[in-house]
Amino acid sequence: MSKLRPLHDRVIVKRLEEERVSAGGIVIPDSATEKPTRGKVIAAGNGLILAGGQLRPMGVNEGDVVLFGKYAGQEIKVDGEDLVFLKEDDIVAVIEG
Amino acid sequence: MSKLRPLHDRVIVKRLEEERVSAGGIVIPDSATEKPTRGKVIAAGNGLILAGGQLRPMGVNEGDVVLFGKYAGQEIKVDGEDLVFLKEDDIVAVIEG
Amino acid sequence: MSKLRPLHDRVIVKRLEEERVSAGGIVIPDSATEKPTRGKVIAAGNGLILAGGQLRPMGVNEGDVVLFGKYAGQEIKVDGEDLVFLKEDDIVAVIEG
Amino acid sequence: MSKLRPLHDRVIVKRLEEERVSAGGIVIPDSATEKPTRGKVIAAGNGLILAGGQLRPMGVNEGDVVLFGKYAGQEIKVDGEDLVFLKEDDIVAVIEG
Amino acid sequence: MSKLRPLHDRVIVKRLEEERVSAGGIVIPDSATEKPTRGKVIAAGNGLILAGGQLRPMGVNEGDVVLFGKYAGQEIKVDGEDLVFLKEDDIVAVIEG
Amino acid sequence: MSKLRPLHDRVIVKRLEEERVSAGGIVIPDSATEKPTRGKVIAAGNGLILAGGQLRPMGVNEGDVVLFGKYAGQEIKVDGEDLVFLKEDDIVAVIEG
Amino acid sequence: MSKLRPLHDRVIVKRLEEERVSAGGIVIPDSATEKPTRGKVIAAGNGLILAGGQLRPMGVNEGDVVLFGKYAGQEIKVDGEDLVFLKEDDIVAVIEG
Repeated sequence: MSKLRPLHDRVIVKRLEEERVSAGGIVIPDSATEKPTRGKVIAAGNGLILAGGQLRPMGVNEGDVVLFGKYAGQEIKVDGEDLVFLKEDDIVAVIEG
Repeated sequence: MSKLRPLHDRVIVKRLEEERVSAGGIVIPDSATEKPTRGKVIAAGNGLILAGGQLRPMGVNEGDVVLFGKYAGQEIKVDGEDLVFLKEDDIVAVIEG
Repeated sequence: MSKLRPLHDRVIVKRLEEERVSAGGIVIPDSATEKPTRGKVIAAGNGLILAGGQLRPMGVNEGDVVLFGKYAGQEIKVDGEDLVFLKEDDIVAVIEG
Repeated sequence: MSKLRPLHDRVIVKRLEEERVSAGGIVIPDSATEKPTRGKVIAAGNGLILAGGQLRPMGVNEGDVVLFGKYAGQEIKVDGEDLVFLKEDDIVAVIEG
Repeated sequence: MSKLRPLHDRVIVKRLEEERVSAGGIVIPDSATEKPTRGKVIAAGNGLILAGGQLRPMGVNEGDVVLFGKYAGQEIKVDGEDLVFLKEDDIVAVIEG
Repeated sequence: MSKLRPLHDRVIVKRLEEERVSAGGIVIPDSATEKPTRGKVIAAGNGLILAGGQLRPMGVNEGDVVLFGKYAGQEIKVDGEDLVFLKEDDIVAVIEG
Repeated sequence: MSKLRPLHDRVIVKRLEEERVSAGGIVIPDSATEKPTRGKVIAAGNGLILAGGQLRPMGVNEGDVVLFGKYAGQEIKVDGEDLVFLKEDDIVAVIEG
């Protein structure tokens, strides 16, 4: 499979389907028809270059599971898979452990 | 329960229901049908990175009770609970003591 | 009563009712149906953090009487009182003496 | 009469009525029904704090007569007088001598 | 006649009527009904103060003939003359010699 | 063929047609009627000059295959070929290897 | 003919008509009714002054042939010729050799 390299503060996410067995597991949308806004980071850029020239390193890394806004980013199908292309600021939280 | 880690100046808030017994207690919306805009901070980022590269540390911490604008942020259900995902600038005041 | 702590350049104002006896006193709206845009500052933040990291200290303090724009800020009821949550830039003037 | 203190780059202006006797005097709007956009500065702030923290001192002072855009600023009645609350950037020129 | 002093990067321009005799002379709009967008600078500010505090000196001076966009600036009548109040960035070119 | 030189952070891209034989190859849009949003960089500028004057070097180079947003950039036909003129920030990922 | 001097990052361009004989020559729009978006730079400013006060020198010079967006800039007739007044950022590429 092709490797995708996002630039700057861009992040590529693969949506995670609901497991719906949720004794302590994460369940995000109520309805099965809504797309999940939880996903796994499959690639992240090196960080945002600020107006003053400094690098703001990424707060998310490959493998992180993240929550993002319902209307955030762009969806593009790559190798048959729908991927979500976000900027780091579209990510509202990292889900840990 | 999963732990949520917000990035930068993001804050995660759980709405606090009205107590309505309000001799000195806080009562925010008049109508029972409106969602409360008072909540408890359950997680906060490390602060905003400014254009010049400096960190602006957070003015709110986990456990703080805060007021926020009615249309601020995004609501996402996590572990069956509606959480509000804000940026620090959406918080209009911290309610102390 | 709960104490409210605004962040950064935020200011909390309690509207002052018209006195309407105005030989030298301030009278703002003509009509009794309009909400006054004059109020007393009940709490103010520590100041705005500028893009370069410097603090811009507040030009208004607790106790100041201020004028603000008719559509400025957000109104939230706290302890039964309508309070106006502004940013310092919404304040068009401090009324002195 | 109450003293008004504008913050930062704010300016308070009292409209000047047309004199209409205009051999060399300033006459601004053609129609008597339009509000004049010429006024006298009755109070000015200390200047704008720039993004880098420097103060940009005011280019207008109390007593200056200024021209401003027709839709600029906010009008608020104070002590029975309509005052115009501008930012310095709303002022298109100072009328000298 | 009153003297007008523009602030910062503001420029005051008096429209120049078409001469229409145009063997090498400048003719701007085709139609006689359109207002000319060519004018003479009658006053210019000292320059724009940049976000970092530096002064960007003016690239146009009193007496320069300039071209400006059709919808640029504000028109205000002063001493019976329609003047155009621009910012330097509204000027698309200086017409030399 | 003419050589095109983009300025600053601009990038010129030639769309790559779908191959549709996709065992591990990249397939982007489902429908044959949509234009591909995958392309080859045929020229790239030297980088963006930041507000503080520093150069942000390009993260993409001539020859790179990139993904870009469906509505990004402008399409102009040059030498009979439709080219897409983007800014680097319109590129959501570089496809490697 | 009058000489035009653009300020800062402004560029003045004269459209180049299609030659349509295009074995290796540039042909931009398909339809003869569309205005060409290819032109020759007849004058360029000294460069953009950045927020930090630095000069960003121009990437295009007098005589360069450039491509620009269909809706970019303003068109003004000068000496009977339609000229396009752009900012450097409206130029998507310089056509070399």
